Amino acid sequence: MPVFDRSEFVARIARVKARMTAAGIDVLICADPANLNYLTGYDGWSFYVHQYAVLSLDAEEPLWIGRSMDAPGARLTAFVKPENIVPYPETHVDSAILHPAQFVAEVLRERGYGRARIGVDLDAFYFTARAYLELTKALPGASFIDSQGLVNWVRLVKSPAEVGLMRGAAAIVSQAMAVGMEAVAPGVRECDAVAKITAAQFHGTADVWGDYPAALAQVPSGRKSAAPHMTWSGDRYKQDTVAYLELGGCHQRYHAALARTLYMGKPPEALLDVAKVVAEGLDMALDAARAGTTCHDVEAAWRSVLNRAGYSKASRIGYSIGLNYPPDWGERTASLREGDETVLEANMCFHMILGMWMDDWGYELSETFCVRPSGAPEILTSFPRELVVKP
Amino acid sequence: MPVFDRSEFVARIARVKARMTAAGIDVLICADPANLNYLTGYDGWSFYVHQYAVLSLDAEEPLWIGRSMDAPGARLTAFVKPENIVPYPETHVDSAILHPAQFVAEVLRERGYGRARIGVDLDAFYFTARAYLELTKALPGASFIDSQGLVNWVRLVKSPAEVGLMRGAAAIVSQAMAVGMEAVAPGVRECDAVAKITAAQFHGTADVWGDYPAALAQVPSGRKSAAPHMTWSGDRYKQDTVAYLELGGCHQRYHAALARTLYMGKPPEALLDVAKVVAEGLDMALDAARAGTTCHDVEAAWRSVLNRAGYSKASRIGYSIGLNYPPDWGERTASLREGDETVLEANMCFHMILGMWMDDWGYELSETFCVRPSGAPEILTSFPRELVVKP
Repeated sequence: MPVFDRSEFVARIARVKARMTAAGIDVLICADPANLNYLTGYDGWSFYVHQYAVLSLDAEEPLWIGRSMDAPGARLTAFVKPENIVPYPETHVDSAILHPAQFVAEVLRERGYGRARIGVDLDAFYFTARAYLELTKALPGASFIDSQGLVNWVRLVKSPAEVGLMRGAAAIVSQAMAVGMEAVAPGVRECDAVAKITAAQFHGTADVWGDYPAALAQVPSGRKSAAPHMTWSGDRYKQDTVAYLELGGCHQRYHAALARTLYMGKPPEALLDVAKVVAEGLDMALDAARAGTTCHDVEAAWRSVLNRAGYSKASRIGYSIGLNYPPDWGERTASLREGDETVLEANMCFHMILGMWMDDWGYELSETFCVRPSGAPEILTSFPRELVVKP
Repeated sequence: MPVFDRSEFVARIARVKARMTAAGIDVLICADPANLNYLTGYDGWSFYVHQYAVLSLDAEEPLWIGRSMDAPGARLTAFVKPENIVPYPETHVDSAILHPAQFVAEVLRERGYGRARIGVDLDAFYFTARAYLELTKALPGASFIDSQGLVNWVRLVKSPAEVGLMRGAAAIVSQAMAVGMEAVAPGVRECDAVAKITAAQFHGTADVWGDYPAALAQVPSGRKSAAPHMTWSGDRYKQDTVAYLELGGCHQRYHAALARTLYMGKPPEALLDVAKVVAEGLDMALDAARAGTTCHDVEAAWRSVLNRAGYSKASRIGYSIGLNYPPDWGERTASLREGDETVLEANMCFHMILGMWMDDWGYELSETFCVRPSGAPEILTSFPRELVVKP
């Protein structure tokens, strides 16, 4: 049942171990469910309890450490040998006294890692302060090193198999966008539009089944479109307002994302002007996203267009995207922003999202792309870039 | 735009402050998005970046501290005065150097809390190890206390307005279950069944719009039903297999959950027997869930039925439910399990879920209920409890 061949996992583990060696880490503990999936193949909606991948330099395979109840799911989805699935008992769930990290510490001590150099990603999703404090307390002879997204940085460059899954995700989100643009109309409740969009995201296509995106649809209109990250409600879309749709497509936990904007009525000049400038900026920035360029330079290409037209934008214009779980499809590594000197390489994938939030309305345009060995990137998503107008 | 009147928030804050005083806490920092919503009304899919509610004993309102980009959303959804919305700059997003917790520490120091007794929930979702380490480093004169779900325990007892929203959520999930039981059939892809179920969850009813549940649909069948928490795939349902549906309904972030099981074909005796015993156990345990009883006793009522029939179950049979965000609709406070001495009170709400996972199949039956001042609880969800058979 694992999604990839064993050879894919072996290659990932080798790349992670090389970074561990460079960082002086003997044992790496990963709490981020995307990293747990990346290293073991494990997939389940169990990340609301503590669970970990533990990779030692001297072990061939990582350990899966999770709740007893989830061990059957690990046996179904992870590539590792049965003896590397190590469940903790139910007594450690939501307890003020017992904590899964105590169990992890015991496993490490038993296997001779009580004095090891242990890497933990201090700012990883689902790696709580208590998990860290319990580990350090139970392993006083070990030293702890902030691994700072070590596995995330390995994930940044995709394998051909991973890019294949992302193409599938992109086909899903492109189709869901068409459904959304049809569904959003004056008088329709936001929740009813989202119901249709989400059904399209989950149906997927005949060949590519739809998995759940790490973030659900964002479909704000009118004044709410001036605020990013607002989810839907029972409000009805109104004539003479702007709405944007920011959607994810997902297949086997791999994501592509896509944003487009529509206007219900005759669009005001200010909106048309922003749409024109943003489309030009997107063209320039996408064309700049070539192997050997830095993230900084990609953003600069956008900014030169934007500033020349008299606009400005404080926030980044994109981030790497791929394998993920809620709450975010971004990988938290390279960002397309000023000062990010990450050099683009072939098979890095990004969601370039140009969000312009004004005082009382907003405009979004985005594409998901994959860097090629040379030349302009492969745009994975596919939907006309013009402002959609429903007169 | 806040969902509740100011008086509702004032009452919550008073209850939280009473617990802070009892615990010797001057300032409480909450990272859990459900607690941020509970104290301020803030609602947005922004919990993938650091954000906090900060409540001081000597302040009338909590502070909302979040990303600059999300401040407009806070102004739209939170009940607090504009000056209590305190955004941190974009430079603090996904940075190895700057961290939002440093910003929080600076806000606290400026306001004279540099030597305060500060409460943090060390094991809260989204409260990372780094956030804690940055806070303690930047506030060396402060003392830190593990508040251990202090706000979660306040959330355990609902107001009448909250119970009203949960009744709406229960209406949604009951309807989605009917859609799901219709959709699951031999030859249908799991993802296509989930598309229909999720559309029903988001449509809601004419009066009650559907919000996104903190966990999406679980619809495993056959061997996968033996493992909890498996999400769907493109696999097709097969004749002569069991499938269970574990679904959430959500309205304005308040949840009800519901699980039922179906068999496609002629059900085997072993399944019919489990279904019969579990239904009896549910009756007994629900009837026991009265104000003044302990969680332990409710579970014991179930276990006596189960053990008499020769079965056993290691995991808890329920947990409190209400306001929440991904990844979990459970409140992480009272659990219906052996040894939990929490005393039931009127307006506590629970999801009682009886999941029996065998070697190669599973069975689930659940209800969401609200404890009444006296007598048996109000069952919020509504769907026939019998095993659904599709011959």
